[in-house]
Amino acid sequence: MTDPHDAYRGKKVLVTGGLGCLGSTLSHELVRAGAEVTIVDSHHPLFGANRANLEGIEDRVRVNLCDIRDVDAMNHLVKDQDFLFHIGMQTSHVDSMIDPFWDIDINCRGNMVVYEAVRHHAPECYVIYAGTRGQYGVLDRVPVDESHRMQPTDVYGVNKVAAEGYGFVYHRAYDMAFCSLRVNNCYGPRHQMRHAKYGILNWFIRLAMDGKTIQLYGDGEQKRDYNYVEDAIEAFLLAGAQRDRCNGEAFNLGSGQARTLREATELVVEYAGSGAYEFVEWPPDRKAIETGDYFADFSKFTRATGWQPRTEMEEGLRRTVTFYQQHRKAYW
Amino acid sequence: MTDPHDAYRGKKVLVTGGLGCLGSTLSHELVRAGAEVTIVDSHHPLFGANRANLEGIEDRVRVNLCDIRDVDAMNHLVKDQDFLFHIGMQTSHVDSMIDPFWDIDINCRGNMVVYEAVRHHAPECYVIYAGTRGQYGVLDRVPVDESHRMQPTDVYGVNKVAAEGYGFVYHRAYDMAFCSLRVNNCYGPRHQMRHAKYGILNWFIRLAMDGKTIQLYGDGEQKRDYNYVEDAIEAFLLAGAQRDRCNGEAFNLGSGQARTLREATELVVEYAGSGAYEFVEWPPDRKAIETGDYFADFSKFTRATGWQPRTEMEEGLRRTVTFYQQHRKAYW
Repeated sequence: MTDPHDAYRGKKVLVTGGLGCLGSTLSHELVRAGAEVTIVDSHHPLFGANRANLEGIEDRVRVNLCDIRDVDAMNHLVKDQDFLFHIGMQTSHVDSMIDPFWDIDINCRGNMVVYEAVRHHAPECYVIYAGTRGQYGVLDRVPVDESHRMQPTDVYGVNKVAAEGYGFVYHRAYDMAFCSLRVNNCYGPRHQMRHAKYGILNWFIRLAMDGKTIQLYGDGEQKRDYNYVEDAIEAFLLAGAQRDRCNGEAFNLGSGQARTLREATELVVEYAGSGAYEFVEWPPDRKAIETGDYFADFSKFTRATGWQPRTEMEEGLRRTVTFYQQHRKAYW
Repeated sequence: MTDPHDAYRGKKVLVTGGLGCLGSTLSHELVRAGAEVTIVDSHHPLFGANRANLEGIEDRVRVNLCDIRDVDAMNHLVKDQDFLFHIGMQTSHVDSMIDPFWDIDINCRGNMVVYEAVRHHAPECYVIYAGTRGQYGVLDRVPVDESHRMQPTDVYGVNKVAAEGYGFVYHRAYDMAFCSLRVNNCYGPRHQMRHAKYGILNWFIRLAMDGKTIQLYGDGEQKRDYNYVEDAIEAFLLAGAQRDRCNGEAFNLGSGQARTLREATELVVEYAGSGAYEFVEWPPDRKAIETGDYFADFSKFTRATGWQPRTEMEEGLRRTVTFYQQHRKAYW
């Protein structure tokens, strides 16, 4: 795997959702690579925006607060950009069921605002889209490769499929450069720690650090595929750097080491040095959208870019706990 | 295949898009079966609404003109309905590319209005959704079965996937009874004949009857799977009648006899007794969204309900031409 940073030196890069966990971690790497970074973020109170995420690069990025649905702002912001890492969307499964119209407005209409802006005002810009494993939903088989059909179990998943689909439609019809990375469950530093609506491992870290008891549904044996945020960000950097191999393609990310939620929770409690866990019955509304074991076949992306996840869960969780022990005040 | 009509005697049935080709043909059958039919239709000038489609049942159906996005009207109209045949949507591929926001507003938000209405005001109602072969888009293989992934090539196709996806999400999460029939290219009587935005065979019939020359892109050898409208409607009746076998499932329709566009056009010109055809180069914007040969594996639906298409293309086209010769004035 070659160092992708060189591709960004002197380039103009727009990052939507740039104040959140993925977007800010990416922005740190882009600044390090010598890119001219503009962050777009809605700063919606339920999402992951946190100014503390920019600690160390505050003066080297431009931050523009606006919603991706703001047509005039987006039309202007995309101009002359070389790359658009499009990460800023509604991300809560639960909220998409509570207010499906809100999710449609952001994740369908809002995404179309972004693509229309690129089509009309930045036709050379390369869009790298943050997809999700939630697009697959009900599974026919594991590991899941990119040809697996998509049967999402929540409105959020349906709309993430749609938003990715618009990107490929615009790629075919208007030659918009577009790549989708279907991200797994991510965890790591800079993630919001204020609610459980998304980012389960980070939420468990908070509970453990607060000395609380973590509730695992059922026997906790459901397998998930967790990526440490820095590994996911390396994938985004590679997908952007290797446009000739990634343009027009969708790729799964994955860890290669699916873990049960119970294993992950045991590690969280161990590294936090506090907290506990217990098993409780599945709440019916959660059970209804549970899709069973998930782990990804990400060999297509490895073949295209050489990417491999580097960070074992033990190491990733240790680093994450240490980060929040040092920066608790900014995230609690 | 048993006669499905019995299932509808005395039942309350709502048909969205009920003034169009599929919806009105279905309404005729439902009236014949003794159902209490309410038609909802937006009467949008680009869509297929035509009062002439109700000739013979005008006094035996209730027609309510409103958009499916009309929340209060839809909430009221679904009450006490036993069946909802949900056919009324934006249907033009081309227009979905010209104004993607309009398509999103109808086909994402509007569909959600319908499902939310059912969820909250008619939880026992069984929703049969008109999907489309356009959901599949770029194909890995033919014949296409229901497990094939979906890679639509236009915004319309993406949003039809989303609208179907919301239905299955509501089925799993709220136990909404839901079935999707992924309809092929349909043709037949009662179809709009005013523009070429959808319904290609009917448009060709108009051109031939008007003595015009039909232009076929490329060599006209692209295969399509055409269903005569009455066969498609029989499928809808069966899907509704066999709720225990169809609820929660998606099914392809198909003809079992894929035909090239050239073969179909030759028949059209022959039966019309006028017109001609010629080959022209693919327009780039059409080529960009062309997906190659399509034909469906519909054996899943045959196994579930016994459905088989009955009408050979020769017979279907003959009947269609005869219909428009008799009713030209109402459709031209």
